[in-house]
Amino acid sequence: MQTVAIVGAGLIGGSFALALRRAGFSGGIVGVSSPPAIETALRLGVIDRGVTLAEACAAAELIYLAGPIHKIINVIPQLDSLVKPGALVTDAGSTKSRICAAGALLKNAQFLGGHPMAGKESRGAASAEATLFQGRPYLLTPNTLAELETPAAREFVEWVTAIGAEPRVLSPELHDRVVAHSSHLPQLLSTTLAATLGAHPDSYAIAAAAGPGLLDSTRLAMSSWEIWNDIVDTNRAEIAGALADYEERLRTLRLTLETGSVEETFRAGDEFARRLRDGE
Amino acid sequence: MQTVAIVGAGLIGGSFALALRRAGFSGGIVGVSSPPAIETALRLGVIDRGVTLAEACAAAELIYLAGPIHKIINVIPQLDSLVKPGALVTDAGSTKSRICAAGALLKNAQFLGGHPMAGKESRGAASAEATLFQGRPYLLTPNTLAELETPAAREFVEWVTAIGAEPRVLSPELHDRVVAHSSHLPQLLSTTLAATLGAHPDSYAIAAAAGPGLLDSTRLAMSSWEIWNDIVDTNRAEIAGALADYEERLRTLRLTLETGSVEETFRAGDEFARRLRDGE
Repeated sequence: MQTVAIVGAGLIGGSFALALRRAGFSGGIVGVSSPPAIETALRLGVIDRGVTLAEACAAAELIYLAGPIHKIINVIPQLDSLVKPGALVTDAGSTKSRICAAGALLKNAQFLGGHPMAGKESRGAASAEATLFQGRPYLLTPNTLAELETPAAREFVEWVTAIGAEPRVLSPELHDRVVAHSSHLPQLLSTTLAATLGAHPDSYAIAAAAGPGLLDSTRLAMSSWEIWNDIVDTNRAEIAGALADYEERLRTLRLTLETGSVEETFRAGDEFARRLRDGE
Repeated sequence: MQTVAIVGAGLIGGSFALALRRAGFSGGIVGVSSPPAIETALRLGVIDRGVTLAEACAAAELIYLAGPIHKIINVIPQLDSLVKPGALVTDAGSTKSRICAAGALLKNAQFLGGHPMAGKESRGAASAEATLFQGRPYLLTPNTLAELETPAAREFVEWVTAIGAEPRVLSPELHDRVVAHSSHLPQLLSTTLAATLGAHPDSYAIAAAAGPGLLDSTRLAMSSWEIWNDIVDTNRAEIAGALADYEERLRTLRLTLETGSVEETFRAGDEFARRLRDGE
């Protein structure tokens, strides 16, 4: 690929651009974003030029959609009349079923859904880092496995590997069930914890007694609602299922601890938490 | 005070000793612990001498009990026949009602319960740090406020301040209700999250998709069961109440998100999470 278009030059899109450069990509990187985002991205050398969506599509062999989910879903149909033949459209949205369904309707470009499991609290191109994806899973969600075998898809996966991420393939539906548990459930547990404590009559004393564990446990609660509104809206059923599963286990734990030992749950939790870190 | 006895020279007891030294305490610091713990504490200069409990009590004006909760509860009655007149016995146990009830029975020494809100994943004197308590709340739980007005208590609180901690006073009962929410609830949510995901049919895919949020959310799940067994055992009713409160809010969140917006909970969680960090 000669030219990459980043549509949504924020934290993720900007980090992908910086990571490509660091991995040796020497082609052009153009950005499509709001004027202030383009200004920041240009100033920090994240992109070479700010362009319109039509200009981006006329130039790019890879179109990287990195905005909020609903923006991605809305922009995909616009691409069909703009893209170059053989171009690959990919995205970094946090839920995949609805995005990949929209992508499957493209006739003049190939679509391949993606989701880098990386992020941080701050947003925008000013927070972008070339190393953001290093050692992190990069989930790829083709509608069919054949989508991974085109030249454009192979080249994209090579770049994903080159930036230090770890490509993992799963269907859009499995993706959404998996992230409902691995990402959306932890987010909602943290949000509910912080909301519960904030509404408690002893809220002031609870805040005054906060130790490092509570700070860790409420970090996700500061995530942007703008982003989570879209995530919740496009994955309601899977999230509700994950919450119901969790509620049942929490209730069982409570009933167990009222009279007995919760050691078994501690051991199981410890084992999974360590397994998560085995690859680190 | 001339001599301090650390009973249980592990992470917390050892850090208190190192913090005293750093704050200018020039008296003696003796330790009562298992032979390997004493060996480590001596080698790292955490204590001056390893002694028996009787020797420690014969020498010390401040007796700092820093072992597991049940060990603290068991050792308190033994102190009565050993302590010097005017000595202060304090502790660093994570629950306070049962410990302070045991302390109230001491006739020959004053007891003042305490709980530094500090810690880390690793344990033992080898992990002790002189700065562990810096900027952290140090909860003091007198049975009556008059307990804070004795010369020994005043001097102890001065040292707590000198090591950089922030003394906060609350009753043992309020303490246990507060930490049930600020500490025990986050612990059990993390444990239950990790246990739930470990038992999920897609457990492997969930682990493969883990991002930084899931790592943060499962860190507490690796806490030592040895410590938590005692905490759960001495605070069952408050913990069960906190869990029931949380379950109800989580259920409400789930029912809300199935059809509508959970923005209000996000805003409330965000507000409390930021309030927690205001003092940082």
